[in-house]
Amino acid sequence: MTAGFPSAEIIRDAHERIKPYINHTPVIVSATMDRMFNSHIFFKCENFQKVGAFKARGATNAVRSLDTETLRKGVATHSSGNHAQALAWAAALAGTKAFIVMPSNSSPVKIEAVKGYGGIITFCEPTLEARETTLQKVVEETGAVEIHPYNDLRIIAGQATSALELITEIEKLDMIIAPVGGGGLLSGTALSAFYFSPGTVVVAAEPVMADDAFRSFKLGTLVPSVNPQTIADGLRTSLGDLTFPIIKKHVGSIVTVSEESIVSAMKFIWERMKIIVEPSSAVPFAAIMEHRINVDGKRVGIIISGGNVDLDNLPW
Amino acid sequence: MTAGFPSAEIIRDAHERIKPYINHTPVIVSATMDRMFNSHIFFKCENFQKVGAFKARGATNAVRSLDTETLRKGVATHSSGNHAQALAWAAALAGTKAFIVMPSNSSPVKIEAVKGYGGIITFCEPTLEARETTLQKVVEETGAVEIHPYNDLRIIAGQATSALELITEIEKLDMIIAPVGGGGLLSGTALSAFYFSPGTVVVAAEPVMADDAFRSFKLGTLVPSVNPQTIADGLRTSLGDLTFPIIKKHVGSIVTVSEESIVSAMKFIWERMKIIVEPSSAVPFAAIMEHRINVDGKRVGIIISGGNVDLDNLPW
Repeated sequence: MTAGFPSAEIIRDAHERIKPYINHTPVIVSATMDRMFNSHIFFKCENFQKVGAFKARGATNAVRSLDTETLRKGVATHSSGNHAQALAWAAALAGTKAFIVMPSNSSPVKIEAVKGYGGIITFCEPTLEARETTLQKVVEETGAVEIHPYNDLRIIAGQATSALELITEIEKLDMIIAPVGGGGLLSGTALSAFYFSPGTVVVAAEPVMADDAFRSFKLGTLVPSVNPQTIADGLRTSLGDLTFPIIKKHVGSIVTVSEESIVSAMKFIWERMKIIVEPSSAVPFAAIMEHRINVDGKRVGIIISGGNVDLDNLPW
Repeated sequence: MTAGFPSAEIIRDAHERIKPYINHTPVIVSATMDRMFNSHIFFKCENFQKVGAFKARGATNAVRSLDTETLRKGVATHSSGNHAQALAWAAALAGTKAFIVMPSNSSPVKIEAVKGYGGIITFCEPTLEARETTLQKVVEETGAVEIHPYNDLRIIAGQATSALELITEIEKLDMIIAPVGGGGLLSGTALSAFYFSPGTVVVAAEPVMADDAFRSFKLGTLVPSVNPQTIADGLRTSLGDLTFPIIKKHVGSIVTVSEESIVSAMKFIWERMKIIVEPSSAVPFAAIMEHRINVDGKRVGIIISGGNVDLDNLPW
């Protein structure tokens, strides 16, 4: 273990902490896919997780790590995506409030979802600066504690539990592929593989339209994305200073995929597996379909990160 | 057991016969759904079955029941739906041919699917008469044996194995709801409940636009549908003279649902459960949403019959 990284024990503790609240998600397989790619592919289905995404794991771990007094004042974040829903849900379940700062141009579907989980929304201008200053104000006014979507060790340890479950259930994986946005899921996955299945390589897949992780990994220094436009909306964020060092140390490689192949992979998974996955979730499989990752003869785990899509606005 | 109905032993034998080839499909639950309807709902997911529908069970049982000499000549049917795919798949897996008569206006997606499983297609005019005479000709020319989509005791016994698995896994169900088209799935489900879980009532749900089972059940005599137009394309067929007597004797009640509620239920299941179900599969849940069936405080099984949809032509 490197100083500052969540240890194996911290990840195991996180799993024990969140177990009563989250779903132990299923691992599913497809004979057709296996035949097609001459491999054994195991899909770890976080689309079946609470709130429809792995984010429920990290949010629950963060919320449940707070002492009673802190928890009482509530939690806060700025997010227009799954973390907003996950934090609102985790807070409500723990009997406290979640203050969510959302850009004014957030999709109505996502606003309704956060409200549905009891989140208290403050709208702001759709810029990173406005989001951060508004969140600052909300935190000052309410005394709520900020829970960052990924650059937080409690979040990383929480997200690591998905790979922990996968590794425990499916032995001798040659590889786990995870999508990368801010790096919470990827860094957690890499740590779990390193601690609990040292023979398993972790590979990241990223949209070429939001390739900050690919570039940072290559340069060895953090290069943020500037206003990326990928359809994989969960992956538009840039790596953080807590997630990047873990990724640099424990991820085998990062590959990028085109927008077209993300949409094809998503549709292919819907058609063949009969499960709803969001564009971000299709990115690892797109990397296989594009032959960016060689899975021939291998046992491969894929983290299906979530299934929250707007069914009235599908990308095909 | 009534003379002419598949016995408990025949259904158990069918299960043993098809087990090596079919998927033991998962049963999934949703805390949200349970809270919403104050019940425990167990979804038996035949959308995760081979070829994406329960039809793989009956087709496999029928094909694997044939003696070697008969099997060698192949099997035949007329169908534009899941039975066509299932029979093509089951035949190929058993090393024989499937001759499929399809109406010339079948959707390209379905034609491709049948071809993909190795089915040998003969096209005909899109009328029942043309389908039957063309099939007759194909059977005469090839010596293949006809496997009817539902009015066949081997098919009924095969379809019964889905409820058998559900009942074995989930105890003390108050009710199982299944959709009804030709009645293969429904009659099989009713027999399995009767033999293996006598306290469980079987209720059928049917589109009001294709309500031949509802009317036949009420009148006590077979009344076929005439050119029904429901979106639930798997349920446009009429009951057969083998399925109807079983349904009359062993089904508790039949309820009907509107087209609008089928689409709402389908979309609701996609959004909340993150699984792809076809319109026919959403009919039982539509009956719950429309309050046609009271599930308050009950343990309810629902057979999700399949997940084959054309993603480019969704009904919303």
